[in-house]
Amino acid sequence: MKSVPSSAAAARFNSAWSDLAGLGRDHRRGGYSRHVFDDADMQMREWFTAQAQRRGLESEVDRNGNIWAWWGRPGPGAVVTGSHFDSVPGGGAFDGPLGIVSALLAIDEMRVRGVQPGKPVALVCFAEEEGGRFGLPCLGSRLMTGVVEPEHVRRLHDPDGISYADAARRVGFDAAAIGPDPERLAMIGAFIELHVEQGRLLHAADPNAAIGIGSQIVAHGRWRMTLTGEGNHAGTTRPVDRHDPMIPAAAAVLAARRALGRHDGAVATIGRLQPIPGGTNVIASSVDVWMDVRFEGAAQTAALVDEIVAAVREEAEMEGCSLVVHRESLSDAVMFDPALTMEMAASLDAPVIPTGAGHDAGVLADHAPSSMLFVRNPTGVSHAPGEHAETSDCLRGIEALADALTGLAR
Amino acid sequence: MKSVPSSAAAARFNSAWSDLAGLGRDHRRGGYSRHVFDDADMQMREWFTAQAQRRGLESEVDRNGNIWAWWGRPGPGAVVTGSHFDSVPGGGAFDGPLGIVSALLAIDEMRVRGVQPGKPVALVCFAEEEGGRFGLPCLGSRLMTGVVEPEHVRRLHDPDGISYADAARRVGFDAAAIGPDPERLAMIGAFIELHVEQGRLLHAADPNAAIGIGSQIVAHGRWRMTLTGEGNHAGTTRPVDRHDPMIPAAAAVLAARRALGRHDGAVATIGRLQPIPGGTNVIASSVDVWMDVRFEGAAQTAALVDEIVAAVREEAEMEGCSLVVHRESLSDAVMFDPALTMEMAASLDAPVIPTGAGHDAGVLADHAPSSMLFVRNPTGVSHAPGEHAETSDCLRGIEALADALTGLAR
Repeated sequence: MKSVPSSAAAARFNSAWSDLAGLGRDHRRGGYSRHVFDDADMQMREWFTAQAQRRGLESEVDRNGNIWAWWGRPGPGAVVTGSHFDSVPGGGAFDGPLGIVSALLAIDEMRVRGVQPGKPVALVCFAEEEGGRFGLPCLGSRLMTGVVEPEHVRRLHDPDGISYADAARRVGFDAAAIGPDPERLAMIGAFIELHVEQGRLLHAADPNAAIGIGSQIVAHGRWRMTLTGEGNHAGTTRPVDRHDPMIPAAAAVLAARRALGRHDGAVATIGRLQPIPGGTNVIASSVDVWMDVRFEGAAQTAALVDEIVAAVREEAEMEGCSLVVHRESLSDAVMFDPALTMEMAASLDAPVIPTGAGHDAGVLADHAPSSMLFVRNPTGVSHAPGEHAETSDCLRGIEALADALTGLAR
Repeated sequence: MKSVPSSAAAARFNSAWSDLAGLGRDHRRGGYSRHVFDDADMQMREWFTAQAQRRGLESEVDRNGNIWAWWGRPGPGAVVTGSHFDSVPGGGAFDGPLGIVSALLAIDEMRVRGVQPGKPVALVCFAEEEGGRFGLPCLGSRLMTGVVEPEHVRRLHDPDGISYADAARRVGFDAAAIGPDPERLAMIGAFIELHVEQGRLLHAADPNAAIGIGSQIVAHGRWRMTLTGEGNHAGTTRPVDRHDPMIPAAAAVLAARRALGRHDGAVATIGRLQPIPGGTNVIASSVDVWMDVRFEGAAQTAALVDEIVAAVREEAEMEGCSLVVHRESLSDAVMFDPALTMEMAASLDAPVIPTGAGHDAGVLADHAPSSMLFVRNPTGVSHAPGEHAETSDCLRGIEALADALTGLAR
């Protein structure tokens, strides 16, 4: 099944990639900051719609802001592929857009091969997968599958205090209708998401493999700890009079790291921490600390968080600060469809690997046979400007996706 | 010399205070965020100019953006009083504006008393005392006295990436001419800054004292530590592969606190800490940590910082991160003019107290006899929304300032 990518395929890839290269660059952080309903996101959506149109694919925006483009008449048994445009703040170029570009180019590849699908084929762009703007990852797919309350989502606020509902309204999208979309969900016969790998498990499985097949996503949750002390003057407040919430916030960072030493395979990260008011010459009055934890199943993840929180609470009490813990999300481990996974692994001759990263495919997996294709990431760096995949590996991914879609749409 | 404040003085104070109450409110942090050349600052400047004009005082903006209003003809031997409008982010209402309002009302009080000053009297509003926008405290007075390089200041950037020069241009102020102003400095015969107290040393000296006189400012510096690691995915990067700069950043917060236990009278504060990129599901690639340290003289302060930095460097190396330390400012201890201080203390029957807070009076003290008047702060809270002074104490401060100016301008 292996073939040398045509130079035409490489040219199509390079053209699509350069279309997107300038959109949503973050000059302060490096890399890209693309978030749902921002300028970059809207430009990428327009780009996708134009690309679909150029291919004669009918596109539509669903009630949750996800874009669908159809090859064939929308209907049940659809073979669906796609990913997301949005990034983490200062993220890489590949996480998300590679899956959408590959979906478009896999259609081109199938047409070059003369494939006539027996089932409808759909491309999807999910809205806000990283949760970079409203704090809730896989927002578009979670709304569609009904695992989040629409009213809760409408009231989510971005860091500038803009609600989801207002952000949607500003770009002409009506948030009144967001929510479960069972008819659309019922049309999905199979879903495959192609994604850049975000670690080096593929390399560990086979140093020569350009692509891998996803087996499962480990459990994943996000917590926000708000530590409140007493804002005061940095120069005139004696140490003994201080109730500085930065002290237990710092303890939280170190407690999270220490806990990992006791639980093999667990990760816990504090990459976002915001002192209020955040002045150089003021003792903070409060600090918000966001913690991302992933470990086996939901129960193990929650237990690990309890362990970390207990250590933080002790430090907070010693400093005369209060602690409020808010769980922003918790997803249990997700197994991808075993039959689909095994079939792809066999036909593509690619290793099967788990991932610690969440994906829309993980949300859909409860509702339709779903799996993932991973493209090799030589350094494993992701969610950072240095994220990279070689073009030859991306082209191999597109071919593999075309193969898989062809098999499923037969 | 004590007198009951007239109801007319109270009405003037309440009127001025309510004029300013709505300007620069920070609804996110609470309190006020007023920074040089922002909307609130420009509105306050307009307010001051109008208030000066109403009193027949000629006002002018000097080459460094400070506003001066003259009672009498500008010239040598001037008796000067004033303070600043700007606040820390989410600061209180009193720190700064109280000194400017009191300056205006002290002139009213002197006129009610029929004082005919034998020397010119000037009111001054210094531009950017807190360093809340460009990171350099006492910017206006430091530029005037030549202790900072104009070119360095023009290139300072605010958190939005706007340079001082651009920020100035946007409000019609030409930053090309900023720099030493020896002619103006030579006109200052004496400078008195009235300020809300920012701790509770006045209470410790005399629980019944509504005002105090400043003796000295302890040494004060600000350092920025930039910790650089490797940005990566929070879910897929094993603990052993992490180079997370949040780990040594957290260690810095705790090291600063620990160091204070070894040095009586020292304070060190980390109230501003910024992970880059700052996403919930990313390991930070770098973290900026700002540290404010105040302790006896400059040498002792720098030695204390060295001690903290050594601990941070060790943690950074263990995590595979690099550390760059940048000294943003360091001011030695400042003694106020002993004769002026003692004379005020005797005539006003008020305690003499030091302060850990920096002030423009500390910058001017090297160039002209300077001192300070502090108004009681019942809780000691400052640089926070809860900062407060009772109106009766503020009126006592205005009377005391009028007394002092009258004596000096004789």
